[in-house]
Amino acid sequence: MANEVILLDFWASMLGMRIRIALREKGVEFEYREEDLRNKSPLLLEMNPIHKKVPVLIHNGKPVCESSIEVQYIDEVWSHKNRIIPSDPYQRAQARFWSDFIDKKLYDVSKKTWTSKGEELEAATKELIEILKTLETELGDKLYFAGDEFGYVDIALIGFYTWFPAFEKLGNFSFESECPKLMVWVKKCLERETVVKSLPDPHKVTELVTELRKKFGVE
Amino acid sequence: MANEVILLDFWASMLGMRIRIALREKGVEFEYREEDLRNKSPLLLEMNPIHKKVPVLIHNGKPVCESSIEVQYIDEVWSHKNRIIPSDPYQRAQARFWSDFIDKKLYDVSKKTWTSKGEELEAATKELIEILKTLETELGDKLYFAGDEFGYVDIALIGFYTWFPAFEKLGNFSFESECPKLMVWVKKCLERETVVKSLPDPHKVTELVTELRKKFGVE
Repeated sequence: MANEVILLDFWASMLGMRIRIALREKGVEFEYREEDLRNKSPLLLEMNPIHKKVPVLIHNGKPVCESSIEVQYIDEVWSHKNRIIPSDPYQRAQARFWSDFIDKKLYDVSKKTWTSKGEELEAATKELIEILKTLETELGDKLYFAGDEFGYVDIALIGFYTWFPAFEKLGNFSFESECPKLMVWVKKCLERETVVKSLPDPHKVTELVTELRKKFGVE
Repeated sequence: MANEVILLDFWASMLGMRIRIALREKGVEFEYREEDLRNKSPLLLEMNPIHKKVPVLIHNGKPVCESSIEVQYIDEVWSHKNRIIPSDPYQRAQARFWSDFIDKKLYDVSKKTWTSKGEELEAATKELIEILKTLETELGDKLYFAGDEFGYVDIALIGFYTWFPAFEKLGNFSFESECPKLMVWVKKCLERETVVKSLPDPHKVTELVTELRKKFGVE
């Protein structure tokens, strides 16, 4: 069966970046389609009628939604190359736990950070740093979250890095000082071609954040 | 290796019920330990330091947290019997999508329902019914969510049924009238010994809800 793979995505989406990286890790060719989030395409609404969100992976006409489910799907369909989730059930559970932690905690606080100001922004920034410190503790002295191999949790987290300069500017702090070990991990991830090709320029994300804050009347 | 399995749980937890059912589906003997959620045990805090929540599955001393991750772990460790998640990658992704939908939508609105009153309760009830109607549409004319076999989404959802009488009483409506097909599915699930053994009496849940609403000053 021919593999027709389409990705409905938005360039600055941390969740979309996961799918781009996972597909490239597997060497899967895909058609990238940029969505206008203020005017979503009929295809997006048809393929993800429940959440109406990017990223959506369309494989031979059938949609897979929710980024962590999409990455698992990619790992299971193209299982011959670069295993993303470890094979051991306990390690799999751990990988899923930390990816879920990022989904539940980091995504929400990121949004809170760039949509708030004053005391609310201050509280969100504090929470954001706490969450990243927890992730740094979990990383410990390992090269990647699962050990020596780049994998599921790395893919779940690395896209957030492109938003770091925007958060630093808003919260007036430095990730390098707050989470030095995590920043070593960021640099290690950025040595991978699959990652570099999939992430936007962080400065462009910062510009987007400035623009969105003006548009939503936060600034 | 001997299998020592301990479940830290609370009897009325819809998420805990998932683990009880999954373990029984696999024929795994386990020690059930009831937690006092207002005075959590040192073991719970040690085993789930991040979320500090039940259910926690402890397998040979090692913890697995977050109910949907625990069910997947159980399915992968005891893979010889009663497959819970389908083997086909696309069906797996679909099963994960609906379980995730229940986690993201139904759990939160359930809490909103039993902790609110007046207009807020009315809105929560309306949302609750909408979510269950969406699940009913997904079920369609199938016996179970994945087709003819009881599985992952059924396990994710069935525990909520024990809270239905409480919701009906609070919101003054009937699930039988609102979601008749879903109630047929409930009855089908209740034919399974693994389910019956794992769920509490819904009337006891209703009593608990009344008690909690008084304690929290909602009524």
